[in-house]
Amino acid sequence: MKTVQEIADLVGGTIHGDARVEIHTVGSLNRANSGALAYAEGKYLGDVPTSRASCVLVPSGDFPGRTVIAVDQPRLAFARVAQWLLPTEQPFDGIHPASIVHENAVLGDDVAVGPWTVIETDVQIGSRTTIYPGSYIGRGCRIGTDCVVYPRVVLYPGVGLGDRVVLHAGTVLGADGFGFVFDGERQIKIPQVGHVKVGSDVELGANTCIDRGALDETVVGEGAKIDNLCQIAHNVQVGSHTVISSQTGVAGSSRIGSHALIGGQVGIADYCLIDDHAIVAAQCGVPSRKRVRAGEVYWGTPARPLRQIKRQQAHLGRLPKLAEEVKRLHAEIEELRSKIED
Amino acid sequence: MKTVQEIADLVGGTIHGDARVEIHTVGSLNRANSGALAYAEGKYLGDVPTSRASCVLVPSGDFPGRTVIAVDQPRLAFARVAQWLLPTEQPFDGIHPASIVHENAVLGDDVAVGPWTVIETDVQIGSRTTIYPGSYIGRGCRIGTDCVVYPRVVLYPGVGLGDRVVLHAGTVLGADGFGFVFDGERQIKIPQVGHVKVGSDVELGANTCIDRGALDETVVGEGAKIDNLCQIAHNVQVGSHTVISSQTGVAGSSRIGSHALIGGQVGIADYCLIDDHAIVAAQCGVPSRKRVRAGEVYWGTPARPLRQIKRQQAHLGRLPKLAEEVKRLHAEIEELRSKIED
Amino acid sequence: MKTVQEIADLVGGTIHGDARVEIHTVGSLNRANSGALAYAEGKYLGDVPTSRASCVLVPSGDFPGRTVIAVDQPRLAFARVAQWLLPTEQPFDGIHPASIVHENAVLGDDVAVGPWTVIETDVQIGSRTTIYPGSYIGRGCRIGTDCVVYPRVVLYPGVGLGDRVVLHAGTVLGADGFGFVFDGERQIKIPQVGHVKVGSDVELGANTCIDRGALDETVVGEGAKIDNLCQIAHNVQVGSHTVISSQTGVAGSSRIGSHALIGGQVGIADYCLIDDHAIVAAQCGVPSRKRVRAGEVYWGTPARPLRQIKRQQAHLGRLPKLAEEVKRLHAEIEELRSKIED
Repeated sequence: MKTVQEIADLVGGTIHGDARVEIHTVGSLNRANSGALAYAEGKYLGDVPTSRASCVLVPSGDFPGRTVIAVDQPRLAFARVAQWLLPTEQPFDGIHPASIVHENAVLGDDVAVGPWTVIETDVQIGSRTTIYPGSYIGRGCRIGTDCVVYPRVVLYPGVGLGDRVVLHAGTVLGADGFGFVFDGERQIKIPQVGHVKVGSDVELGANTCIDRGALDETVVGEGAKIDNLCQIAHNVQVGSHTVISSQTGVAGSSRIGSHALIGGQVGIADYCLIDDHAIVAAQCGVPSRKRVRAGEVYWGTPARPLRQIKRQQAHLGRLPKLAEEVKRLHAEIEELRSKIED
Repeated sequence: MKTVQEIADLVGGTIHGDARVEIHTVGSLNRANSGALAYAEGKYLGDVPTSRASCVLVPSGDFPGRTVIAVDQPRLAFARVAQWLLPTEQPFDGIHPASIVHENAVLGDDVAVGPWTVIETDVQIGSRTTIYPGSYIGRGCRIGTDCVVYPRVVLYPGVGLGDRVVLHAGTVLGADGFGFVFDGERQIKIPQVGHVKVGSDVELGANTCIDRGALDETVVGEGAKIDNLCQIAHNVQVGSHTVISSQTGVAGSSRIGSHALIGGQVGIADYCLIDDHAIVAAQCGVPSRKRVRAGEVYWGTPARPLRQIKRQQAHLGRLPKLAEEVKRLHAEIEELRSKIED
Repeated sequence: MKTVQEIADLVGGTIHGDARVEIHTVGSLNRANSGALAYAEGKYLGDVPTSRASCVLVPSGDFPGRTVIAVDQPRLAFARVAQWLLPTEQPFDGIHPASIVHENAVLGDDVAVGPWTVIETDVQIGSRTTIYPGSYIGRGCRIGTDCVVYPRVVLYPGVGLGDRVVLHAGTVLGADGFGFVFDGERQIKIPQVGHVKVGSDVELGANTCIDRGALDETVVGEGAKIDNLCQIAHNVQVGSHTVISSQTGVAGSSRIGSHALIGGQVGIADYCLIDDHAIVAAQCGVPSRKRVRAGEVYWGTPARPLRQIKRQQAHLGRLPKLAEEVKRLHAEIEELRSKIED
């Protein structure tokens, strides 16, 4: 539990109201109860007076009878307070007897390993990392400190994770990349013997798949966030702090820069180059070997700058009118012709 | 095993043929064997005479030498008979010794829990519910009666399921929603501390993901059916009896009404409002904050009424002709000009 | 370990350089180290002189001071050598005591079953097949010889696999197909009591789902390769040696021929017919009951031959010019009119 004063100190905000009020949780503006911190921005500021939250983070302003903290970016401040205030879920300690941990695995202090897990030979796990029930950590994996591996995650051999990595349930890292060569009759598998390397502070959503490199590495950079049910193919590089929304797929050897924003259900074909800070809208399809630049939103299939597409859409929208105009011109020409020939 | 008479009584149909024939299974019209019930509608009625099924549900008509039951909606009647006739698969009873059930979990009568499962503290499971091997039920989950949780399902803490819910293998309920706020350097996680609430008679497909609400709830209404590999993001509401096909994704805070039909690979962006009874075609992309109304099929990206799109497609199709016409008009004008100037 | 001579003999190639050099692994041209075999084609041939690989497969040519093997298709030869040279990963032997294998299951010689697995009644598993930890093999499944079932795979009852099948982590075979019929109030489930049959030499990617047939079978033909996170619905038939990329979905009862190439994120609606050798580009949407023919690439939604789409795109691109031209014609007509009326 923290006081409003302590929270204001953390986020560098200005209190209007009672600095001694105690806060023990967070909530949404319209559903929070007493003891909760909420935040409000834009049109939602009108709901501050009727919120039951004990304190609200706001961009500015006074709300008579309410305790608020004025702060530059309320949503960001709210995220920071929540990380600091809310207890970390840790349902179990130590190495559960119903786990199978290879005798030569090296585990740091306070590592927790749940039941029905397997940790194969030559694995290293850093301090305070938690492996939930049912996960499988293959031979030679390296896992950093303070990671959370939720239930039923699979790490094939040789996967490397940095520190503070979060893997949600059902993610699969290091499965074979999808590479075959046709011999005239059948598909012959190209060896998939590379690795997967995931930087610190990465979070991967449920049932997401990151394939191992064919011969080299598949890399997810530091601080990148990838949503549920995404597919990252062999040899892909995802830059640091890049955000990829749900159900997006990135095909072999494509490189996404840092701080890029990739929407949901995007398809990025193979050998693409997505620049740092690029923005790719949801459901966009980026064709093979295409470069996507920063500075404008890319949209549609094949992916193009949104401005271009809007221009084309405008022309398309005027098409019925254009057709009518052509018809009218035709009539006018006929009229002129008859006048001349008279 | 049932007789044709008993089946006709169940579905309110009229028998043509032998009411005493015994039926012990169901099958497809062209592959069923003796002892099986099949159904036929539309063009498939022509195959009734050669079917080896012992009885066929048909909309009407007499089929000499065959036993049929005439009923209004044969496919619906077939589904009803199958539910009544076929035995429920139940491969195991009781609590398997190789499961870990927290001592304070409350389990109803005839609950079956398979091996290699974990049921955490404060869980309640209703009577006759089956938890297959390898599933993980987090702290404080509430599961109703007569549910089937197939192998390797993960329920994060605090998920609530109604009665008769079916969760197929690999589904993940309650993973963190995908919410981050950029602080100028890195993505800071917005707390994801809400819940997931799933109504009675819901069925969720294999490897589908339903994220927990950020602060409030993600809700799947009674009787909704969601196919494999779908993504339902934080704070989404799916209405009752709505059907969502495979690989569809619904982004944060969107609301889908009841009895809606959502095709496969549809992307619904955040804060959309899909009306009751709305129909969204496969691969459709619904942009952020868009409202989709009932009464017409929505199609394409960005989603629009199919009628509008067809009209535009027609104009597009006439484009080559239009270009030729403009060329001809140009020639005619030149011709007129030369006549005038002569 | 093999010599360059042995490798050249295997692939039928011609050595330029030292036939006695020893090769013990494979690598990429630019990252391979001493002892590795690499390959080069096209523009990458320029990197052969600086590669540290001990031997490079090339289409032809002499590279002074380097040991190369000239062979018709270097990439194919490389795949063949890798399969022959690289040891098969086999992290465990025998039946792990922490597995549950039904007493009447029939296991061939040298079957390996990892911990935390369940093998239900009436299962048959062929010789040398490996079942990794956490997998669930339902009642009556038939698994061939030399298969690899990676961790956390689920086979519902009655799934059949040929020989040398590879199932990556998290795949789900035989979950119920998605079939419901609306009774005016609720969705009634159509029985899903068919099976799944997977041919020999099939490889299925991580978290991919293949549903059981409703009444008949879902079939994946011999040698087909299906990438991660794909959805194959009830009663679908995938032909032999067909390749399906990641996140593609195929709806109920569609039939894909043999040797077809289906890109990533493709949606194939129900009752489609995709011919042998057909090519469907990434993100393509094939509408219900459509036939896709071989000989041209299909593209877009709704799927059409790429040639058609390119033609339409060209017309679209000329639309602004066309609009200007119509405007100009209008002016010219006015000019003529004034001349006439003078």
